Amino acid sequence: MTLAPWRSPLARALHLNRALVYARYAQLATLRQDGRPANRTVVFRGFWDETNQIKLIGDRRSDKIPQLAAQPWSELCWYFPKSREQFRLLGTLTVITADTADSSLATVRHAQWQSLSDNARVQFAWPQPQAPRADIAQFDPEPPDPTTPLPTFCLLLLNPTEVDHLALRGDPQNRDRYWLNAVQQWQWQAVNP
Amino acid sequence: MTLAPWRSPLARALHLNRALVYARYAQLATLRQDGRPANRTVVFRGFWDETNQIKLIGDRRSDKIPQLAAQPWSELCWYFPKSREQFRLLGTLTVITADTADSSLATVRHAQWQSLSDNARVQFAWPQPQAPRADIAQFDPEPPDPTTPLPTFCLLLLNPTEVDHLALRGDPQNRDRYWLNAVQQWQWQAVNP
Repeated sequence: MTLAPWRSPLARALHLNRALVYARYAQLATLRQDGRPANRTVVFRGFWDETNQIKLIGDRRSDKIPQLAAQPWSELCWYFPKSREQFRLLGTLTVITADTADSSLATVRHAQWQSLSDNARVQFAWPQPQAPRADIAQFDPEPPDPTTPLPTFCLLLLNPTEVDHLALRGDPQNRDRYWLNAVQQWQWQAVNP
Repeated sequence: MTLAPWRSPLARALHLNRALVYARYAQLATLRQDGRPANRTVVFRGFWDETNQIKLIGDRRSDKIPQLAAQPWSELCWYFPKSREQFRLLGTLTVITADTADSSLATVRHAQWQSLSDNARVQFAWPQPQAPRADIAQFDPEPPDPTTPLPTFCLLLLNPTEVDHLALRGDPQNRDRYWLNAVQQWQWQAVNP
């Protein structure tokens, strides 16, 4: 597996914006089961080993999990404030749950859980997301086991097949399109902003 | 027309984040004509007069215009980095073009064009977006007339019918849901994050 050609400008953007914690936040668009779009902020958790797949995490009880089971296509829109760049990454999302049988996927889910902070892990023991607000005591459960993921914990892998990179700096702005062709090779073209 | 109840926390977030120019940027999810989601950064241009409709702008030649003609539902995801808040605004988008007959809509389109900077206006005279990169000379056209919008200029009005406000500060986090009921009144509920 070789690195896709958009990995280099994305790595550069991450480096240029490294002082901003929220430069690792991006917005993930999916489809609701009624066909309307949904959009929420997610945190970039790095790439899965040597692949071009982006790791995100989610709660099995959240709306996006059944949405993705019904329709796996999504677009991640990632704006980098300091370098003034946008990456749009269109691809399918694989949801890895406690029930995922594939051992390499189960392993990466376990590893991701272990790398979380205690504060991040405890949120998977909180009451049902989006239900009417629960009593405050329910938000103070025992800290979950740091080695074994809670059943609510999901790892999401975004496998991009089209990437659009817009750099607002420059006059005129620069925009590059990358896409996987029919034989799974990355193509590239400079396009108008 | 009264202000929706989510307007007050949104105005507060805009105030708390006013030092960051990119706090006025948000991500707009729409549906591609092939049914897959699309997601891109847009700039908040304020509200339309005394309504709860959010003004955005777009190029008639961009993908989102035919996408919205086919399916007007969209979700705007707006993250405020300084106050650590997210607003998700689900609603329909009205696209106002040079062909829009309604005079009040045509008026607001004209007013929006007139309020743009010269730099913002000239982009609507640039070559076809997303086409193979044009010669640099084509990006230096005559400045457009500041009073009459170019035909490529569209105003978009997002009319939210559901709003989800998540405040990451606070232990636990706070989340509020707002929605328009069957008789077009705003309802509100505190929910679990």
